[in-house]
This record gives sequence, structure tokens and C-alpha cells, in this order.
Amino acid sequence: MRRRRFLEGLTALAALRAHRAGAADPLPRVNAERLRRRLEELSVFGRPAGGTFADGVSRTGFSAADVAAREHVLAQMRTLELAPAVDAAGNIRGRRAGASAGLPPILFGSHIDSVRGGGNFDGDVGSMSALEVVATLAEHRVPTRHPLEVVIWAAEESNYGSGLHGSRMAVGQLEPGEWDRVQDGVRKADALRRIGGDPDRIAEARREPGSFHAYLELHVEQGGRLDREGVPIGIVEGIVTIDDYDVVVRGFANHAGTTPMAGRKDALVAASEVVLAVRAVATSEPGAQVGTVGQLSLVPGAPNVIPGEVRMTVEFRDLDGARVTRLGQALQQRVGQIAAETSTAIEITHSSRHEGARTHPRIQEAIAGAAAARGLRTVRLPSGAGHDAQMMARLGPIGMIFVPSVGGISHSPRELSRWEDCAQGADVLLGTILELDALDRIA
Amino acid sequence: MRRRRFLEGLTALAALRAHRAGAADPLPRVNAERLRRRLEELSVFGRPAGGTFADGVSRTGFSAADVAAREHVLAQMRTLELAPAVDAAGNIRGRRAGASAGLPPILFGSHIDSVRGGGNFDGDVGSMSALEVVATLAEHRVPTRHPLEVVIWAAEESNYGSGLHGSRMAVGQLEPGEWDRVQDGVRKADALRRIGGDPDRIAEARREPGSFHAYLELHVEQGGRLDREGVPIGIVEGIVTIDDYDVVVRGFANHAGTTPMAGRKDALVAASEVVLAVRAVATSEPGAQVGTVGQLSLVPGAPNVIPGEVRMTVEFRDLDGARVTRLGQALQQRVGQIAAETSTAIEITHSSRHEGARTHPRIQEAIAGAAAARGLRTVRLPSGAGHDAQMMARLGPIGMIFVPSVGGISHSPRELSRWEDCAQGADVLLGTILELDALDRIA
Repeated sequence: MRRRRFLEGLTALAALRAHRAGAADPLPRVNAERLRRRLEELSVFGRPAGGTFADGVSRTGFSAADVAAREHVLAQMRTLELAPAVDAAGNIRGRRAGASAGLPPILFGSHIDSVRGGGNFDGDVGSMSALEVVATLAEHRVPTRHPLEVVIWAAEESNYGSGLHGSRMAVGQLEPGEWDRVQDGVRKADALRRIGGDPDRIAEARREPGSFHAYLELHVEQGGRLDREGVPIGIVEGIVTIDDYDVVVRGFANHAGTTPMAGRKDALVAASEVVLAVRAVATSEPGAQVGTVGQLSLVPGAPNVIPGEVRMTVEFRDLDGARVTRLGQALQQRVGQIAAETSTAIEITHSSRHEGARTHPRIQEAIAGAAAARGLRTVRLPSGAGHDAQMMARLGPIGMIFVPSVGGISHSPRELSRWEDCAQGADVLLGTILELDALDRIA
Repeated sequence: MRRRRFLEGLTALAALRAHRAGAADPLPRVNAERLRRRLEELSVFGRPAGGTFADGVSRTGFSAADVAAREHVLAQMRTLELAPAVDAAGNIRGRRAGASAGLPPILFGSHIDSVRGGGNFDGDVGSMSALEVVATLAEHRVPTRHPLEVVIWAAEESNYGSGLHGSRMAVGQLEPGEWDRVQDGVRKADALRRIGGDPDRIAEARREPGSFHAYLELHVEQGGRLDREGVPIGIVEGIVTIDDYDVVVRGFANHAGTTPMAGRKDALVAASEVVLAVRAVATSEPGAQVGTVGQLSLVPGAPNVIPGEVRMTVEFRDLDGARVTRLGQALQQRVGQIAAETSTAIEITHSSRHEGARTHPRIQEAIAGAAAARGLRTVRLPSGAGHDAQMMARLGPIGMIFVPSVGGISHSPRELSRWEDCAQGADVLLGTILELDALDRIA
């Protein structure tokens, strides 16, 4: 038994070496048709009544649709002999043994929950590709030295006031009152039990630093860059850090007819200056950083009354956490000037920071190699959205592969990644796993 | 009878002449204490349960509180032998005979309905002062040549989608579907019947052009100018014209993390430029014109989504209707540039125009004379708010007297005009009536 595994390991290594030497591609490729079928089969869970694939899904974490989809995935993993189990956080974990004793597993996967009114690609592409990679390796009888672990993270999308549920639990990052939060009349503790998790044993879902060789995640870009530039593979440099601010502008509500322009304390005029300042600050230096005001509301809100108060949100994102901090400081300074110029009081509160993470350079290199071997162009780019990978980065080296989102549309039934792009992404995931498998340690 | 009236008329004229010649003030003055009592007695109708005078009133037109207050006013007018009647529009009209046959009446009054959560001065001061003026003339046995007509306009404040109900009916300006509009489950036709009006005979509420000598209205300023400058009497030059616009900004909603700054079509950034453009346009030339964005809403309205659409209102006001038009045109032009610069589509629709009205120079002069005779400083100013007087201006010469609003606060329980200011305003109203009474015709 052990000898057979050893021989299979040698075969895999030989294939890998041939590939790296630039020989004609000797590596197994995923079955593109089968991957498509996996995505289509998953798409029925949470699909609007009477809808089609194009109508997307509402498969929010912990929902009945989520529970049904998880059962479907568990069954698929059993077919692949991954012996799947659900941990205390509700994460689904399946394992394929490695050929060399004592090596830590290579983790890969994504999530299958969606936003309300979401599409069939965000999370699903990475999850179904993970299964397809295992199926391809089994089919071609390719062993790996490291064990492989497929992980389907529970409730990645925002739910109960925060996202990345499963991966947060894996690093032990509980938030205050985590289990007592209520959504749609259900406590989070009870919601977790619905998917087979157990809040009382949540510590068992923790993973230790250094307990895995690498964490890999294939995902749709959600932005429009790959699609616009016609590049099939994105090598993610990291996941951005996000700073959120709440801004309250206080002016004075008064009659729009009887209050002269000079005597006004118009909260909306001040807020408009803040909106433009956010844009000016974000574009004041070269780089991929972004700044957004996504919410704005005012009172009293009558056509003939000068707005007395405006509340708005501001967020800044960048791969460089220090730059994110700097953008917020620059806004604070500008806001002080705006308040003085508009005779208003502006309060800006730093409501939260989501620490991003860099991907490992060696894994970026492995992705680049796997793509190059398949003749696929790549571009390096940051991930502007959050991913479970950023939690895993606290425990070990991570890497992320992006495939194009047509038109950059995301979190919508209209989100779309072409089947061939999905299959090429899965192929690069497979190639990256095999390349990293050759290493004992990533440094 | 006729001879007695003629003699009384001569007495009034003699008093008037003595006054105009600069003699020691021979004219009757209103009873300031009694005027205050009138205002305090009226304030109980629509007062919040358990409240005091300082808590203001919610005495919206056609409401139970309005009906009760109207009964109270009708009773007071009967005491003053004004033989009050309610016309088909619900306006309360009371009449005191004049000494000279064939002369048209001098109309004066205001309204007693309030906004929801209003104060005790807007409308009330002019209405109660009208009664106090009649009481003073009766007490001092001062006849007038012209008949006097006190009018309490029905439902001046916005109600059922528009304001100036009673005075609009007096000029025959019905709006489409006027009677079928529903508010709080009640059709306007039925609401009108509650206050003794009759929608089926509404034509009877019309007044003819030239049917009155002058229309006078005393009102609180609602702005802060008189209070700030310490001037007790404002001579209103006219009521502003208002142009209302609806603006829709269409951009493209997308993920705030994955959409680079350069590729954004941020509807809120464009809308903020429009808000600042409204202010810039309104302040681009000297004058008292104003421009306001009072309502603004956006979709989808999530902190991490770039706003895809913004809807907002814009209004411009000025005494000069041509300038109001010009301000709108200047905004239109600027909006075209903003749309191009922000990659958005901006639609600006002229939703309505409220024609203002100039007050008559001869009446302004009479007000100035009456104030001067009492040693009261005056300032000429526009009315930025609408008043029933602007409807009456279509039928004959009008004049308006303003008294200070402390802090310029209006449409709030906190609106306040000092008792002495109210009494001085009523004195100037009385003096103006007597001065105009000496004229057969205002030209």
C-alpha cells in the first residue's frame, strides 16, 4: 500500500518535472464539461421559483437553500472519496491522503453561500473547481506528496452583521455577541446548528498556524479588469485593507425661501464637499486605492427646507494598510476645512478596519508558472473584495487565482464568467497545487 | 344714519390729516394685552396633549383642531359685529360697513391653520391682529369711508398636495383632480365640507378683479433679517416666484472594492457636483435670490456599493421671475458639463412654477407712512415664502407687513415673535388701513 503510493508520488513528480522543463503539456486537465455541470447542478439551490440559471440564486448562509446545497456538496465529496465532515463552525472539510508521511496538507476551496439576489459564480467557481481538481487527479491516478484538503467555508457573505464566518472561526476571531445576534428572527447560534455546526464547541474549528502547506482559492474577479484587458488569469497580489467611517454633518434646517444664502448652514452642501473630497483624496496619488461614499441620507428632506443633518458612510481600500490609514487622515483634515467653510459641524468616526493580507510571492510564482505552461496570459492585481483567504493568511501562506467577470458585474444575478474561463481557472488551480506539492515548505 | 356715518367719516379723515401733518399721534392704537390674549386663546386649538403655549400647535387645515379654532374665531367675529359667513371655499369673511357709498372694501386678514408641528405666530398674528384692528376702531368709534372686510383664509399651508387653498379658490385656480385627492383617508371634497365649504358651489367663492380697494396682510417674517437687524417692521416688496426642478442622476452601481476610480460612474459624485452648482448659480450675481437642494435619495445605498442612481429636488426663488428662469437655465448648462465630466446621465425636469407677485408701491408707501408716524424703523424686503396675498394680487393692489421672527425660525413650535412686535405690527396695519381709506382708488 505504502509502496504503491510512493510509486504514484514519483509519477506525479516526474510529470511535474517534465512540465517545468517546458515539454509538451503532460499534465492532466480538468473536464470543462463536467465542471460546467457541477456549477449548473449547484445553481438549483436557492434559485428563484420558476427561474432559470440566468436568474441567479438567493442562497444566503444558514438558509434552507444553503442547507440543501451543502447536502448536495457533501454527497459529491463522498463520491470523490473525500470522507467529508462538518466542523463546529459549519465548514465542510474533505481530505485526500498524500504520498509522503508528515507533510502538511494543501488546502483549497471557496464558499457556496451567496448574497440575496446573487449569481452562480461568486464562490461557486472556486468550490466546484476544487471538487473538479480532485476528480481529475483521481481519474488520472495522480497522487500528491502532500495531503489535499478541500474546504467549503460556511457563510462567507455578510450575515448577522459580518462576513467570512467560517474562516473567522478557523482563526478564532469571534466578535462581541456573535451568537446572540438575530437575523430574520433567528439567533446566530441556532442558525449555525442548522448547518451542522456547534457554537458550544466552536474552539474545535480553530486551525493552528503552520498547520497547512498552502491555502489556495480560485474566485471570480468581481471587478472588470481581466474582462476589459482580455486576460484569462489574475494573480492576486493580496486582499485590500478596508477602513470604514461614519460621517455626520450637522447644519441647521430652515425655510428655503426665507433664509438668505449667506446665512445658511446647509448640511447637504457640506456633505457634497465631503463626497468630492473622498474622491479627491483617493485619486491624489497614483495607485489602485479606492474611496467610496455608498450611503447618504438627510433630514428633514423636504424640497423647501434646507437640510439640517446628513449621515453618510465613507470607505477607503488598498493593498497597503498604511496608505489606507493615510487616506483617512487626509480626509479628516479636509473635513475640518469643509466644516469651517460651510458653518457646519462634521463628525467623522472610524467605525471599523478590515485587515487585508498579502499573498505569498512563491505562490504567485507557482500560479504564474502553471498559467504560462498552459499558454495563459496573466496579470497581477489586488482583490478589492474580502475573501476567506485573508483569514487563512494569518496561519500560513496563501494564494488566489482570479478568472474574469464579464462587465465586472458582481453580487447580481447578472454576474457571469465564461465556461472556458472557469475551466482555465480550474486548470491553473490544479497546476498550482501540483507545483506547490513538489515543495516541502514554502519560503 | 347716513349723515352720522358721513360725520364719522369726516372725523377719521381729520385724524388722518393731523397724523400726516406730523402732529402728535392722534390715532388709536391697538390694545397690546388684548391682542396677546387673542393669540393665547387661539393657541389651545391643536396644542399637543399636556403641552403649553411653547409647544406650538398642529392645526392643519380641515382637521378637527382647525374646525374648533374656526368656531372660536367665528364667535369672536360675531362679538365684533362682523356678521361672519363661511364661503364655498371655507374662507371666513366678516364685514364692517363703510361711511361712503359705492366704495369697494379694504380686505385684510391671514390664516389660522398651521403645519404639522407648527407654532403660534405664522398666520395667527395677521388673523388676530385683523380682529384687534376692528375692535380698536369700534372702541374708538372710528368709522372708515370704505367698508372693511376681515378674511380668514382656509387651509393656507400645504395640504392635499398644494397650499393657499382658500385664496386659490378666490381666484378660481383649481388644480387637476383637486377634490379627489386623498389625505389620511379623506377625500378633499369631504374635508372641505367639514369646515362648512361646498365643492359643488366652489365658483361662488370667486372674487372679481377690482372688487376690493386693497388687500393687506400682516405676517411674521419667517426669516431672520428683521430680528438680526433689529428692525420692527418689514415692508414686503413682493412674494418670490419659485421654480421647482426634479433631477435624476443615472450612473452605474458596482462593487466599491473592485471598481477602480477611473472606471466609475458614481451617481453621488455627480449629484454632489449638482448640489454645489445650485449654490454657485444662486450666488453668482448680487441679489436676494436663493437656490436649494432639500431632498436627495440614492440607490442602492450600501456602504460598499457605488451609488447607481440619485434623485433630488432643486428650487430657485426670487422676486424677479425672469431671474428665476435665468438661474434654472444656468443650472441646466452646468448640469450638462457635470454629466460629461462624471460619465453619468443627468435628467433635469421643470416640475412647477409658482408665480410670485409684487406689492403695490402706493401701499408700500402707506405702510412706510404708518410706521414712521409711530416712530418705527422699516426695511423693504421680499417674502421668500408664499402667502395668500400673492393670489389676491391677481385681482387688485396688495400690501404686506412683516414683524420679526426671533432667530428666523419658522414652521416649528419654536417660532416666536415678541408680543410688542406683534402689537406694533397690528398698529401699522391699522394705520395703513386708515391711510388707504382716505383714497378713492389706489393707482
